[in-house]
Amino acid sequence: MSAAQAYVPTARTTPSRYRERARYDRDTVHGILDEALICHVGYSNAGRQVVLPTMHARLGETLYLHGSTGSGPMLTAAGSPDGLPVCVTVTLVDGVVLARSAMHHSLEYRSVVAMGNARLVTDRDEKLRALAAVLDHVASGRSADSRPPDDRELAATAVLALDLVEVSAKVRTGGPIDDDDDIALPFWAGVVPLTVSAGTPVPADDLDAGVAVPPYLAPYRRT
Amino acid sequence: MSAAQAYVPTARTTPSRYRERARYDRDTVHGILDEALICHVGYSNAGRQVVLPTMHARLGETLYLHGSTGSGPMLTAAGSPDGLPVCVTVTLVDGVVLARSAMHHSLEYRSVVAMGNARLVTDRDEKLRALAAVLDHVASGRSADSRPPDDRELAATAVLALDLVEVSAKVRTGGPIDDDDDIALPFWAGVVPLTVSAGTPVPADDLDAGVAVPPYLAPYRRT
Repeated sequence: MSAAQAYVPTARTTPSRYRERARYDRDTVHGILDEALICHVGYSNAGRQVVLPTMHARLGETLYLHGSTGSGPMLTAAGSPDGLPVCVTVTLVDGVVLARSAMHHSLEYRSVVAMGNARLVTDRDEKLRALAAVLDHVASGRSADSRPPDDRELAATAVLALDLVEVSAKVRTGGPIDDDDDIALPFWAGVVPLTVSAGTPVPADDLDAGVAVPPYLAPYRRT
Repeated sequence: MSAAQAYVPTARTTPSRYRERARYDRDTVHGILDEALICHVGYSNAGRQVVLPTMHARLGETLYLHGSTGSGPMLTAAGSPDGLPVCVTVTLVDGVVLARSAMHHSLEYRSVVAMGNARLVTDRDEKLRALAAVLDHVASGRSADSRPPDDRELAATAVLALDLVEVSAKVRTGGPIDDDDDIALPFWAGVVPLTVSAGTPVPADDLDAGVAVPPYLAPYRRT
């Protein structure tokens, strides 16, 4: 399947508001998923919604979610033979949009919503690949520059896999759009751009002074 | 109720993992809610979870969530006389934690999870106060420096209110904690600090050149 092909919109991935902001092309969706450091996973536990932040990684058309074996979603997934119904949402905030009118304030943002039944990864090789992908998602190249998990660590870590099928992005760019009657009001209007900045890497207290900061951290970038 | 008093933990706000990271004091919870620009709201729509990003603001012990009248959660809330069961999660990522072992990689983060039944705000004065709070949450002082909503705009905007009762925070700070056997491995370990940086405000194309950037945007800060 070509990355240029688009996801097929469904009733659940068609926004009820601002439909012109919806995007279904894979490049846009993949770019947002790959840039965001974390996602928010929604699932139902004993009939109540729970939303938790976690780390993720995308490999092709599969989104992997990282957790510990004893965490809520992983325990719930372990008891769900057909997979755990989830909604995974990723949001990047690119700026604050200030309009003359209160009503037209907004944010510049890029978000992805992926829905479906997530399965607990039980195959050892897939689990190792997924965990390496999560590490490389956090810092590109890190899986080859760290000690891999041993059997005990693998057993303590759980991974959920969600196939990217029912997926949409929403993108808002550009400045404020005020009503014509408001343009002349004496209030500043525009955008304050926001970016995530990485500071100088801080070595661990017990790090040997001979170990240099690796190239993938100097500088550290999300894009 | 004093801000120093703590929220009472419940089974649902006691994490199953890393309980030592849980915080229930109001100062910590309020600080995270106030700093975060957006939240992720989880709710159930026709039996399936949905997680959407939105803007919020806190006034005392009430968390207000902003939306449009035609959006999914607002329509669902309008049909829920006892309020809409929600889980609202806010996450701030403060750094990437790199350990020698794959297993001990983590993030520095501060998150809040608030659960309960959110009610649709129908009182006009409360709605105006809530919308002003959302504006001031986005940029402190902005509600007094923009055109307030008129009746038509008020009708098109919806606000949910969630009382802060079942609430917890989770905070992870500090560097990596590697196993003793891994300390001498030749991999860099430490933290890459992350912050949200605001760029120079970009005026709208149709902004009169005589309107100066207001003090609350120069510089723009979240804390």
